[in-house]
Amino acid sequence: MSFCGNMAVAQSGGPTAAINATLCGVIETAMEAEIEIYGAENGIRGVMEKRLAHLNPIFSDKNNRELLRLTPAAFLGSCRYKLPDTSEKNEIYESIFSTLSEKNIKYFIYIGGNDSMDTASKLSSYSYRHKKGVFIIGVPKTIDNDLAGTDHTPGFGSAAKFVAATVKEIARDSAVYAEKSVTVIEIMGRNAGWLTASSALARCETSRAPHLIYLPERPVSRKKLISDLKSRTERNIIIAVSEGIRDENGEYYSKEEASAHDIFGHAQLAGAAGVLAKLYKNEFNYKTRGIELSIPQRASSHFSSLTDINESAQIGAAGAKAALSGKSGIVMGFLRDRQYGIKIVENNAADIANLERFVPDEFIAQSGNDVTEAYIDYAHPLILGEPQLIFENGLPKHIALHNFKDINKK
Amino acid sequence: MSFCGNMAVAQSGGPTAAINATLCGVIETAMEAEIEIYGAENGIRGVMEKRLAHLNPIFSDKNNRELLRLTPAAFLGSCRYKLPDTSEKNEIYESIFSTLSEKNIKYFIYIGGNDSMDTASKLSSYSYRHKKGVFIIGVPKTIDNDLAGTDHTPGFGSAAKFVAATVKEIARDSAVYAEKSVTVIEIMGRNAGWLTASSALARCETSRAPHLIYLPERPVSRKKLISDLKSRTERNIIIAVSEGIRDENGEYYSKEEASAHDIFGHAQLAGAAGVLAKLYKNEFNYKTRGIELSIPQRASSHFSSLTDINESAQIGAAGAKAALSGKSGIVMGFLRDRQYGIKIVENNAADIANLERFVPDEFIAQSGNDVTEAYIDYAHPLILGEPQLIFENGLPKHIALHNFKDINKK
Repeated sequence: MSFCGNMAVAQSGGPTAAINATLCGVIETAMEAEIEIYGAENGIRGVMEKRLAHLNPIFSDKNNRELLRLTPAAFLGSCRYKLPDTSEKNEIYESIFSTLSEKNIKYFIYIGGNDSMDTASKLSSYSYRHKKGVFIIGVPKTIDNDLAGTDHTPGFGSAAKFVAATVKEIARDSAVYAEKSVTVIEIMGRNAGWLTASSALARCETSRAPHLIYLPERPVSRKKLISDLKSRTERNIIIAVSEGIRDENGEYYSKEEASAHDIFGHAQLAGAAGVLAKLYKNEFNYKTRGIELSIPQRASSHFSSLTDINESAQIGAAGAKAALSGKSGIVMGFLRDRQYGIKIVENNAADIANLERFVPDEFIAQSGNDVTEAYIDYAHPLILGEPQLIFENGLPKHIALHNFKDINKK
Repeated sequence: MSFCGNMAVAQSGGPTAAINATLCGVIETAMEAEIEIYGAENGIRGVMEKRLAHLNPIFSDKNNRELLRLTPAAFLGSCRYKLPDTSEKNEIYESIFSTLSEKNIKYFIYIGGNDSMDTASKLSSYSYRHKKGVFIIGVPKTIDNDLAGTDHTPGFGSAAKFVAATVKEIARDSAVYAEKSVTVIEIMGRNAGWLTASSALARCETSRAPHLIYLPERPVSRKKLISDLKSRTERNIIIAVSEGIRDENGEYYSKEEASAHDIFGHAQLAGAAGVLAKLYKNEFNYKTRGIELSIPQRASSHFSSLTDINESAQIGAAGAKAALSGKSGIVMGFLRDRQYGIKIVENNAADIANLERFVPDEFIAQSGNDVTEAYIDYAHPLILGEPQLIFENGLPKHIALHNFKDINKK
């Protein structure tokens, strides 16, 4: 089958350990279709600024595709640019489609989070209304697992595996001293507690940590935090909290540092672990420590989930195939089989963009300070397996676009 | 050859990813010598409180030895207890040797850091002066690499590998946005910058991060911090700083949080990354972020160095053999061959206890904000290789003493 044009791909939003595996799936599909594939640098901005890297010369080398699959963050760079609403002709949109047209790009795959699915939806609807003839598909990614229309998000499994392994190791470390201690571990997730909940996967025969888990879905008062801790008899307590943990009035515990906002109006959070550690310190006479897992949660491809990496590549390939078959305005998603396995499904981008998917009641314990067995059953298959890493000088080897600027100049 | 008594082993000080490999080396040597081996729980306190676990029944199972080798933190627990000075008979010492005598323990291996080598030295000298007939050997461990009498310390290589891989991943993550940014990464090391220096191992073909490295060996003024950053032209700057970074007056940058002291009188530090991030934020108009690598630096056995794990086991075995051959008051160390390889050497415990080994001038760049190639040559062999992990439910499997309380009660 021969296709009527070339393909472009871009990455947007916060990086993950698996977003490049999705990019790899897109690239391989374009190469199998024998069309040219261009990578827009820094998301949609790369199209607006005519920064399109020709990817075929780089990824005709299988070794480079393998490195890409295992490189964290976004190979093409990212952006947090929000397209304006429009139903009329608009010069930003016209310029985007004009740039795509210069390279005869008929298929555009946008890999990103909620805000990126909004971009895909707007572009697709503009293309349709103004007869641009470009097929635009969204492929989700986020460690937060908070997108609608999918059983789980590409990138979540790797982050969950890293979080669970790290919580397990911190628990082991905290248990070496005979003195009582409380360690508060802060995990990413502004409004949805999926990743914080994954800390429960750390529990095993040798440790029941984390002993308390607080998700943003269940606001918790200072009084309850104290009484929950009083009720625990373990010597070395591990508490997992979401960065977005709120009190009974819906106020962030970390609010003292929440003065900054990103360009989508989301409060930038930091410091919940420190705030809670101080709260416990004032109430209890034992050692307290706050640990923020920070960026490594989303970047630790030295310890990613093979299931996640493989599924992320699959959904990228499926997105590219959907575009090639003439679909547009679609966001790909996972549907879970009864015995764990996934099918890939299509959602209308306009229906799911800007929706947040929260941890449902059935996954949160009645006590409000733990998850249920049903959550464990849900999350466990997502962290299984480990990719074979490629090492260089004792560290995982990566691939970077700036090393190929010469290839693109040829 | 038959031996005149049994062996005890204890672990002390802050845990590492390799201290249990050393314990494994000690246990295997005792088992080969066909003597009983007891583990004192929580360091010397376990002897004082008669908490001695019988290890032969647990570790006659080879699978348990393999799990031990790969379990982070201290299997036997740790302590931060400092033995009193004494040249006279003293009831604490008498009680220690009386407990050892009850189990016919003639060989005692103490695995720990600087403070622990002080304990080994005191016990050995007491044993000699009061004719207790117990041979006491110290085996070093610390991620800080700051002990005298050794080329490097067991535990350092694994921490350095984790730090370098994490800095490389954070650098990749920070580079996805087109906007200027500064990320300050805080790394452990109170007075010695060995581990902070290891961040330089992250440099490779795809990234020159970290762009600036500050060690506690080189105090740095606020003015120099600002001018160093001004001189960098990269878009996304990564700065590695030691938790113990000081200004030109020798004051810790993190001093606002340094009010607490541990029982050895060491200031507890936290917050250098946050303090520097604020300093840069006030001076420069771009995004800044502070990241504290925290406990995962010393606990991440999901990504340890095979070289370190193997050497740690070797030095444990060598310590046990030294005791069995009637040596005492000795601390084991590594001597490096010209082509990388190690020999194990013996130091007089009294000579090296309480000494700190700093990063030497030849390893620190003239600029005071980087390391030299000589440091890279020194540190690089220590992070090579990866152990084959044992997985359970998608996470590295550990072993814990509390799961064997029944075996010990039999």
